[in-house]
Amino acid sequence: MSGASSARIPTAYAAIAAGRPEVFIEVVPQPEAAAEHSDRVAAGGSLAGLLLAVKNNVDVAGFATTAACPAFADGPAREDASAVARLRAAGATVVGVTNLDQFATGLVGQRSPYGGVRDSRRPDFVSGGSSSGSAVAVALGMADIAIGTDTAGSGRVPAAFQGIVGIKPTLGTVSTSGVVPACRSWDAVTILARDLDTANTAMGAMAGGADTRTWPADIPLAAPTAARVAVPDDLSSLAPGWADAFTAAADRLQAQGCTVDAIPFADFLAAARLLYDGALVAERHAAVGAFIEAHRDDPAVDPTVSAIIGAAAAHTGSTMTQDLERLAVLEARASALWAGRDALLIPTAPGHPTRAAVAADPVGVNAWVGTFTNFCNLFDLCAVAVPAGCVTEPDGSLAQFGVTVVARPFHDAVALDLAQRVMVAPPDLRDLAGPTAAPALPPADPWPVRAGAPAVDLFVVGAHLVGQPLEHELRRLGARWVGTAATTASYRLAVLATSPPKPGLARVADSSGAEIPGEVWQLSTGALGRFLAELPAPMMLGPVDLADGRTVVGFGCTTDAVGGATDITGYGDWRSYLAAMTRPDTGNGSGMDRNPGRVQRRSDGSFFSK
Amino acid sequence: MSGASSARIPTAYAAIAAGRPEVFIEVVPQPEAAAEHSDRVAAGGSLAGLLLAVKNNVDVAGFATTAACPAFADGPAREDASAVARLRAAGATVVGVTNLDQFATGLVGQRSPYGGVRDSRRPDFVSGGSSSGSAVAVALGMADIAIGTDTAGSGRVPAAFQGIVGIKPTLGTVSTSGVVPACRSWDAVTILARDLDTANTAMGAMAGGADTRTWPADIPLAAPTAARVAVPDDLSSLAPGWADAFTAAADRLQAQGCTVDAIPFADFLAAARLLYDGALVAERHAAVGAFIEAHRDDPAVDPTVSAIIGAAAAHTGSTMTQDLERLAVLEARASALWAGRDALLIPTAPGHPTRAAVAADPVGVNAWVGTFTNFCNLFDLCAVAVPAGCVTEPDGSLAQFGVTVVARPFHDAVALDLAQRVMVAPPDLRDLAGPTAAPALPPADPWPVRAGAPAVDLFVVGAHLVGQPLEHELRRLGARWVGTAATTASYRLAVLATSPPKPGLARVADSSGAEIPGEVWQLSTGALGRFLAELPAPMMLGPVDLADGRTVVGFGCTTDAVGGATDITGYGDWRSYLAAMTRPDTGNGSGMDRNPGRVQRRSDGSFFSK
Repeated sequence: MSGASSARIPTAYAAIAAGRPEVFIEVVPQPEAAAEHSDRVAAGGSLAGLLLAVKNNVDVAGFATTAACPAFADGPAREDASAVARLRAAGATVVGVTNLDQFATGLVGQRSPYGGVRDSRRPDFVSGGSSSGSAVAVALGMADIAIGTDTAGSGRVPAAFQGIVGIKPTLGTVSTSGVVPACRSWDAVTILARDLDTANTAMGAMAGGADTRTWPADIPLAAPTAARVAVPDDLSSLAPGWADAFTAAADRLQAQGCTVDAIPFADFLAAARLLYDGALVAERHAAVGAFIEAHRDDPAVDPTVSAIIGAAAAHTGSTMTQDLERLAVLEARASALWAGRDALLIPTAPGHPTRAAVAADPVGVNAWVGTFTNFCNLFDLCAVAVPAGCVTEPDGSLAQFGVTVVARPFHDAVALDLAQRVMVAPPDLRDLAGPTAAPALPPADPWPVRAGAPAVDLFVVGAHLVGQPLEHELRRLGARWVGTAATTASYRLAVLATSPPKPGLARVADSSGAEIPGEVWQLSTGALGRFLAELPAPMMLGPVDLADGRTVVGFGCTTDAVGGATDITGYGDWRSYLAAMTRPDTGNGSGMDRNPGRVQRRSDGSFFSK
Repeated sequence: MSGASSARIPTAYAAIAAGRPEVFIEVVPQPEAAAEHSDRVAAGGSLAGLLLAVKNNVDVAGFATTAACPAFADGPAREDASAVARLRAAGATVVGVTNLDQFATGLVGQRSPYGGVRDSRRPDFVSGGSSSGSAVAVALGMADIAIGTDTAGSGRVPAAFQGIVGIKPTLGTVSTSGVVPACRSWDAVTILARDLDTANTAMGAMAGGADTRTWPADIPLAAPTAARVAVPDDLSSLAPGWADAFTAAADRLQAQGCTVDAIPFADFLAAARLLYDGALVAERHAAVGAFIEAHRDDPAVDPTVSAIIGAAAAHTGSTMTQDLERLAVLEARASALWAGRDALLIPTAPGHPTRAAVAADPVGVNAWVGTFTNFCNLFDLCAVAVPAGCVTEPDGSLAQFGVTVVARPFHDAVALDLAQRVMVAPPDLRDLAGPTAAPALPPADPWPVRAGAPAVDLFVVGAHLVGQPLEHELRRLGARWVGTAATTASYRLAVLATSPPKPGLARVADSSGAEIPGEVWQLSTGALGRFLAELPAPMMLGPVDLADGRTVVGFGCTTDAVGGATDITGYGDWRSYLAAMTRPDTGNGSGMDRNPGRVQRRSDGSFFSK
């Protein structure tokens, strides 16, 4: 174990011991965690060495799954939930199971007999919930990643209040096997982490498993450079100063080339209200109603939660169906409102309430907190919540301000990409966490790709290079720019008589080839098929050997097109050739004719000669 | 108007007048239909000249949408339902609106104040329902196509009893706008026709419109040649003689190269029972419960329907949620049971009851009739019901026996393909219909393609030709063989040094080319992307010009691969070359060297020469 890794357990356990007893419902004994950590670091994996906290409505082998209600647990769980098992398999070590709003019913983190979870920075404020313990554990460095769940915003609101990242994936992409249902139709398992790269890598490891939805063949793997982003037209529900912080976030996207425009938000908000105010809450009764009715006198049953779920018994299936129909109508209308946009940008929460405010009006304040989160799962959208600066509150304290990027189902990579662009990490986060000794993970492929979304690398050498005239074709197909690469030394480049001008990459059988530099894009197989279907002559696509040992799909062209074409291999690459063309008085000194603009024939490769 | 077309209206109206008053609730006056028909024939379209009957739970402008309950209609519909409008736009003429089991609640066709619809051949037997009038109208030649709806089997059971075709598409692929809901989560709009080509073409015209699901990028467009088909292991519910008829149908598929094996069917049947016996029936109450409760004393409200929907008021949302969860569990289990199979083959109905039997036990017999249909929409599967021979009943009469091919969501083209292979058209159908003067439509692309499923043509000249070693790669990707084609006279063919041997198709810039024959496959863009991602060197894909004027995606290869390869253009095509290779003593007389197996170099095209 490296020195950095071996320091991680003591640091985390020191943070756990430092006076926030409400965060964990149960903690793994330190020696046990240290042993597991050591084993997992040795075994490696994308998450090796990271510490994991698990919301206590998700099974961890050997721990009671209380959902914050002690009597609910039927002894210790026999095995890990799928999500936990997958994170462990990737190298994470569980340090404990965390407190939550009972039965994941709440957004404040105060509805628990294990104590209301306090904000990591401002203990008089709520932590946000229902994944309250998980979020605070990450913010305070007790864990590096945490599992949350999210039906109405439970994985996003606490992320925002704690100044960390929360990924709420497309419904059904993470197995809910071993998770206590809240509303089974709209429950998602989420990841909380201090930075986006770590959250992304963890989601890639966690997603998949039994009964998960299949990734479509044609999902986008990035947002367009000039993404079109919709924001709510009405920010009147926001706390003082919060609208300014939101506008600053939107401006940040605009400054990076995105288009931001406001859309009417009433239909989104109407759908949001259906989650608790309509008959859909009957799903919560289906999940734990029988337990609550049998435990009315148990003082550990939270009165607010009990009242909400108890009342949900009264709704008929007929009314529920009608509310689902109403939801479908709202969804269609809302969908039309942001048609043509790549994502929504919203404040994650409209403000950060104090514990006293929540105690005074538990239901009303909770509903306000969920203003911008409740509609998301009902509309089958995915979301990434990220820190986006701070707001100075009327009392002079500093609130963490968070925004959420919401995208269409399976467009998780789009949300991730835009969240990266808009995020501002809180300056105090690493201090709060202490010397965690767990370095942030490096950037990785978007998690849908690692979770099985079909993706292919495409090597380009000409008009599809970044900044060249056809880059937009790949961007429009949701392609993601991966980096530069070069062919093996078995290729030559020619100028084709196309508009715009394109190079033809041709493989040579003899030793006359060169390593041709280019760029690699990643796109879905469905997008690749569409790209091929629209490819104009004389371009062709097929395997190209790269100098790094890989064979990827790349460009070629028909044999007749290179037959009489000018060989420009000597220029090095397409951009150098283009640059030389705009400076007709200079050659590039690489052995090319001094007047490369004129058509010429070379005799170094058989197929270039007439 | 052609003579054939002008005869269609009088023939149909003669059939309508011939003594089946219960089939239509309202008929378009003949002169009006004749005028519309004449206009539509003149305007053309894929359905030009066909007569359309519309189940009366689907809006037809100017007609009351009664759903077989007169008081339910709120005056004449102001506009056509989306499905009707799309069929009319493709050339169909509406002749009337048809009787049904009230509120589409039933599979027998007897639950209607407009009269129980009698079987077209055996009037003492039920027509099947709930699309009873639509099916009998088609069977008796009163219409050529008819719109049905299908939640529990209403578009399939009457098709089976009437010896016609019923396509029950993937849920949400046809707009339900303008359709009275039965169970909104599982309602499908269906097509009934006498033959599969006509039904397919009509579905292609009808599918799409507002709020329909997007076709995935990677759907299969055909079943594999050696399709794997699962059948129920328990046929004990079938009427005497019906299991033999089913076995004969399964044998027919087997004789054509399919694998047929039996799977346990209990989970399918358990799900089927949830539709009426559980809380899911609350969806029916949501749709028309308030109306029924307000019209308890209306004698036109069918007592069986009223009892079913009235009782549905009692289910809670909580119970409904639990039944949906139970359904999800059954779906996952059932799905595992036919994993690895392309489709299910089932008897559409277990037997054909008499009207007397249904009158004696309206609910019990109805439930029996739906044994094999109820699970389909609950599991989000698509289905095609086709005639599959006859069964001699104990009374000596001849029952139409029907089978249904069930496939996964959006695999409608697979169901269609296998239905075509298993179908046996009743010999008496054309006689029953009289000289309809409306010829069956010719084969067309599978309807998902015409409804917008992404599809691409791929031109092959070598190892992917039918019968060649790599045909299976395309079959496995769900590609559909379309036919033969040839390039323009701008290409030459060479033998590449690959295993298996493949030809390289190369475009030539000079006049040395020839028309190279090959074959065209159709596949989804997602499948094309996967095919490209796995393509081995030196093959390439890109645009190829065909002699018929089209440019499609086709094979090429890298320039180096053809550089020193043997030119075989003179053989005509790849199969001729291969045939010549196995007969080394004969040339093909087309000017090739007499010993073509030996590597040679030709000088007629620059890139073939060294």
